Amino acid sequence: MKENLSTKLLRAKLVAGSLEPGQEIALRMDQALLQDVLGTLVMLELEAMGIERVKTQPTVQYIDHSLAQQDNLNADTHLFLQSACARFGIWYSGPGNGISHPVHMEYFGVPGQSLIGCDSHTPAAGSLGMLAIGAGGMEVALAMAGHPLYITAPRILGVRLEGSLPDWVSAKDVALEMLRRYGVSGCKDTMVEYYGPGLNSLSAMDRHVMANMGTEMGATSTLFPSDDATLRFLRARGREDVWLPMQPDPGCTYDLHDTIDLDRLEPLVALPSSPGNVVPVREAAGLPIYQAYIGSSGNPGYRDFAVVAAMMRHRTIAAGISLDINPSTRQVLQVLAEKGQLAQLIQAGARLHQAGCNGCIGMGQAPAAGRNSLRTVPRNFPGRSGTAEDSVFLCSPETAGASALFGRLTDPRSLDIPYPRIEEPMRIKPSPAVFAAPLPPAEARRHALVKTDNTPSLPRLAALPDSLSVPVLLRVDDDVSTDDIIPAGARVMPYWSNVYETAKFAFERLDESYHERATALQQSGGHAIVAGLNYGQGSSRENAALVPAYLGLRVVIARSFARIHWQNLVCFGVLPLVPDNPEDALPEQGAAVTIERVHQQLSAGPIVTALVGNDLTPLKLRHTLSSRQLEIIRAGGIINLIRMPESLEKSMP
Amino acid sequence: MKENLSTKLLRAKLVAGSLEPGQEIALRMDQALLQDVLGTLVMLELEAMGIERVKTQPTVQYIDHSLAQQDNLNADTHLFLQSACARFGIWYSGPGNGISHPVHMEYFGVPGQSLIGCDSHTPAAGSLGMLAIGAGGMEVALAMAGHPLYITAPRILGVRLEGSLPDWVSAKDVALEMLRRYGVSGCKDTMVEYYGPGLNSLSAMDRHVMANMGTEMGATSTLFPSDDATLRFLRARGREDVWLPMQPDPGCTYDLHDTIDLDRLEPLVALPSSPGNVVPVREAAGLPIYQAYIGSSGNPGYRDFAVVAAMMRHRTIAAGISLDINPSTRQVLQVLAEKGQLAQLIQAGARLHQAGCNGCIGMGQAPAAGRNSLRTVPRNFPGRSGTAEDSVFLCSPETAGASALFGRLTDPRSLDIPYPRIEEPMRIKPSPAVFAAPLPPAEARRHALVKTDNTPSLPRLAALPDSLSVPVLLRVDDDVSTDDIIPAGARVMPYWSNVYETAKFAFERLDESYHERATALQQSGGHAIVAGLNYGQGSSRENAALVPAYLGLRVVIARSFARIHWQNLVCFGVLPLVPDNPEDALPEQGAAVTIERVHQQLSAGPIVTALVGNDLTPLKLRHTLSSRQLEIIRAGGIINLIRMPESLEKSMP
Repeated sequence: MKENLSTKLLRAKLVAGSLEPGQEIALRMDQALLQDVLGTLVMLELEAMGIERVKTQPTVQYIDHSLAQQDNLNADTHLFLQSACARFGIWYSGPGNGISHPVHMEYFGVPGQSLIGCDSHTPAAGSLGMLAIGAGGMEVALAMAGHPLYITAPRILGVRLEGSLPDWVSAKDVALEMLRRYGVSGCKDTMVEYYGPGLNSLSAMDRHVMANMGTEMGATSTLFPSDDATLRFLRARGREDVWLPMQPDPGCTYDLHDTIDLDRLEPLVALPSSPGNVVPVREAAGLPIYQAYIGSSGNPGYRDFAVVAAMMRHRTIAAGISLDINPSTRQVLQVLAEKGQLAQLIQAGARLHQAGCNGCIGMGQAPAAGRNSLRTVPRNFPGRSGTAEDSVFLCSPETAGASALFGRLTDPRSLDIPYPRIEEPMRIKPSPAVFAAPLPPAEARRHALVKTDNTPSLPRLAALPDSLSVPVLLRVDDDVSTDDIIPAGARVMPYWSNVYETAKFAFERLDESYHERATALQQSGGHAIVAGLNYGQGSSRENAALVPAYLGLRVVIARSFARIHWQNLVCFGVLPLVPDNPEDALPEQGAAVTIERVHQQLSAGPIVTALVGNDLTPLKLRHTLSSRQLEIIRAGGIINLIRMPESLEKSMP
Repeated sequence: MKENLSTKLLRAKLVAGSLEPGQEIALRMDQALLQDVLGTLVMLELEAMGIERVKTQPTVQYIDHSLAQQDNLNADTHLFLQSACARFGIWYSGPGNGISHPVHMEYFGVPGQSLIGCDSHTPAAGSLGMLAIGAGGMEVALAMAGHPLYITAPRILGVRLEGSLPDWVSAKDVALEMLRRYGVSGCKDTMVEYYGPGLNSLSAMDRHVMANMGTEMGATSTLFPSDDATLRFLRARGREDVWLPMQPDPGCTYDLHDTIDLDRLEPLVALPSSPGNVVPVREAAGLPIYQAYIGSSGNPGYRDFAVVAAMMRHRTIAAGISLDINPSTRQVLQVLAEKGQLAQLIQAGARLHQAGCNGCIGMGQAPAAGRNSLRTVPRNFPGRSGTAEDSVFLCSPETAGASALFGRLTDPRSLDIPYPRIEEPMRIKPSPAVFAAPLPPAEARRHALVKTDNTPSLPRLAALPDSLSVPVLLRVDDDVSTDDIIPAGARVMPYWSNVYETAKFAFERLDESYHERATALQQSGGHAIVAGLNYGQGSSRENAALVPAYLGLRVVIARSFARIHWQNLVCFGVLPLVPDNPEDALPEQGAAVTIERVHQQLSAGPIVTALVGNDLTPLKLRHTLSSRQLEIIRAGGIINLIRMPESLEKSMP
């Protein structure tokens, strides 16, 4: 049977289940990638599970988010992660090496392998023909321990690329064209596969731009074939030995199908404040800008910087404009320095930053309030730049560069210079010594974790009691995000490694007294939360489940849940329930919720009856837990389950 | 009469007084330099004084401290400063241009001119033969408005340099040798003048290193002659037209005299946590290090980076070491990129940061707690790195580079490679377009200040009433620093532009209730503070006087005052008094302090009698205010005085 490449790769990694879209499947993960602000908890989870050594090869810990060292917290965290790498057999990529996604591609990407990462942009590695999936930290920890990853089998969307890109139009415009067509959730439970003759004009790093931004459409992953461009990329880095050709079978089919004629694309821009607000640049041209920002995992390639440098030659940027150059990787920075583009950019008035995520997640380069910022980053959610009242536009390096020259949003086609075509470097001198390689097992076992007060071991969560009687401590509305549950930003993120300290910020935007009130009930049975629709939307951060669970959260009754947060709640033993009858009133804040014989009710079927308030009014609730997930809930979370190997055997395929 | 160069320059700028050491003199200031975190208040002071246009030419506002943009506050402040530059006729040097001191040298330094700056390292411009003095913001604002600067006429210390520097020993080691000899306060009220044949081997940027660090010895300023090295520096930047030769008269004398034989110097290091703890590197060699940090105004030259790059050629740094490259200026960064050193450093494993002050003042690159950090910065005061329990060593780039290669504090002479001698670039392409030049007066007047909630106008301070009766709101011990009064760091510094917001942090380390209690008394006469010895030591930040004055501080009774804070208190109309009899007990916290007929008592002589407590116990206090300063105190601060031109005429010479 003729198969598309996604199906081939999924099948090659399939451990359990069927590739029927919508079914739960289990996939073997070859490699794993950790970023720093979420990696700390993963390491503590390995410790809590009693894991001796990770099985994914390679597993790489990147330091790329926590670079704003204004006190010792982030630097201490780097040392902790470094020690955890030594202890568990993990590669360590220290500060200065750059952003996980492009660095992983440069040094570790292997066509045909699968990759799990605790970062939503992990699918960027699909640019090299990898099956790359982002997941919650606990799922990544399990994969590192050798367990498969459970996901919903995706539909495969085949996108045929025809023609080639016109002058002044580049990969980011293709990614934006996809967002224009599919919006920010149009590819949920979908894997996007690009193919066709248009691929010839796209380098591996160009493909990274598109695979990276598949995440913004909600895609499970994005995949490119492994072809000459893949080989060229690997060969330039002395890694051609890992290349293998991978193509969809000629004449294969896809669940969904689309075509993009590259010749007909034009420069596009996503207006504030959603990656889905895409319009042609010419329609918004002329807006005054404050900042143009080049780099991030959304445009990480040498080309992306070099084209702007070429545009800046013998020119200077417009007065008062901040042109922020955010190098993506050490390799890219080195080539830019060697080939002269860095000097050109500096001469033109650019502001050069360290290699890393920086402003893409509000850790630097935040724009002035209300001023227009053009960025080549993947996301422009409100406030993500660090500035609460921000106005961020997503665009290509060409559009950002042209706009920096004129001080206004500018269609780069209006420049009166020939389009600079950038040659990819043929040979890059890698610096493998800037990584710390995993230690041999015997040596690794002698290493202890370098802990501080800010990296305490995880709390032990209690198993689910058979009779639950807890008050509703918090009743919240629709669309509560994980950001509402655990804030991000420079103030809180340095504490994400510390459940106990993070707990003090839990729900602070919605109810400042939550932490104190939950703590008071921590020893006496815990509490419940009642919510509206789409509870736990947004970022996948697992501490939004772990921290409330530590504070005693036993059950969440919501009208609906966001998918990843639902999974995270289960991972940490919190029971997620929805009303069986959507019309039913939900318990008020302060009301007692009693569920008798929980274990028996959960096993018996999807309906659980709770008794609400002093008069014990019955309320029919519904769960959608698989038997594996029921086992996790009963144990009080997956860490407890892993520590009971006999239960694990039973629940794992 | 044969004069040393310092005396010649001081005499050329003298407006009033005599050059007798210890006497108050008034000096004309030709140029002014502002950094950002202290410049905001200076601009608000110009506004409060009703100044139309600054008189110092050039006056330059640098953005170099507030680069850590994790929210909009710093970016908003940049826009405010940019607008104030447009309004008042000031050059604007935006983020990315680099650190004020070396940038000022590159673009604006002129031998023979005087320079005032609201930054303690302003004397670095003495490297080009300028009379450069750091001062409090209010004094800088006055100079910008055309008033002279009042200082104590310094003693002149002539330091004859003989011989030339051996391999692996550089200007920083000369600066450290001076600190070894004089300690951190041995040059108080002293101007250091270097001369002699040893100068021939020191470039203008080498001299910057030594002039910059004169501040660490408490020197009023440091001066170098204007010679061939000065000319070479200016010519490389296309500015040879401003050069003029300046030398001390042959056979002149100095108040104090010393000699350094450069041939006999060896690599030195200042141990934690004082620039005065200087020992030879060989005595401390072998200590494990965590970080090596190259750059800052303490080693800003192209050479300082290039020598490390040459040492790194074909090598990588030791595993786990953070080699932080902190470029000083856009020009330096550009030359390093053009000449290939940047690529070498990146290849070797260095972490490249943006150009600016950054970690030198705890705004990035903070080390892990308790780990040894080698830095080429000028200061290693406890906690200045941003890490409360830090362990910072000061050394040359050579020592830092060698130590990064071995992971241990290493005497660079132990390297088995020839000492890399770096040629200064003959021609640097300047980027004048990255500055915003002052607008013509007519156009400037049409510009308004771009204010936000975080840049409110200054409060009007009340004139001194004739009868003062205030409670002692705070009684503190010896050595209270301006850091104790107004904290620095990333949490508070973004609010330094805002007196009202900064007020909430006042004295928080010593008494969290100060702000609230002071506010309660703000309308009913204010309060007093009673302190021990050396009140207001440390940084010159003027908000440590302005903010308490705004909160109602009328009088400080201390056993002694730090010099600059004493001046700042006077500037903002707070009466500084010491007990006439050092044995006398000082009022307790809560006691009422009453001073009747204050104006008359102050004018009558140095003694002021206060009545303390309910029983009105008399306490004899002493003031050392000049008649000019008495005028300021009576008016409720210098801004009020400036707004009363008739008083001003009377009090200014």
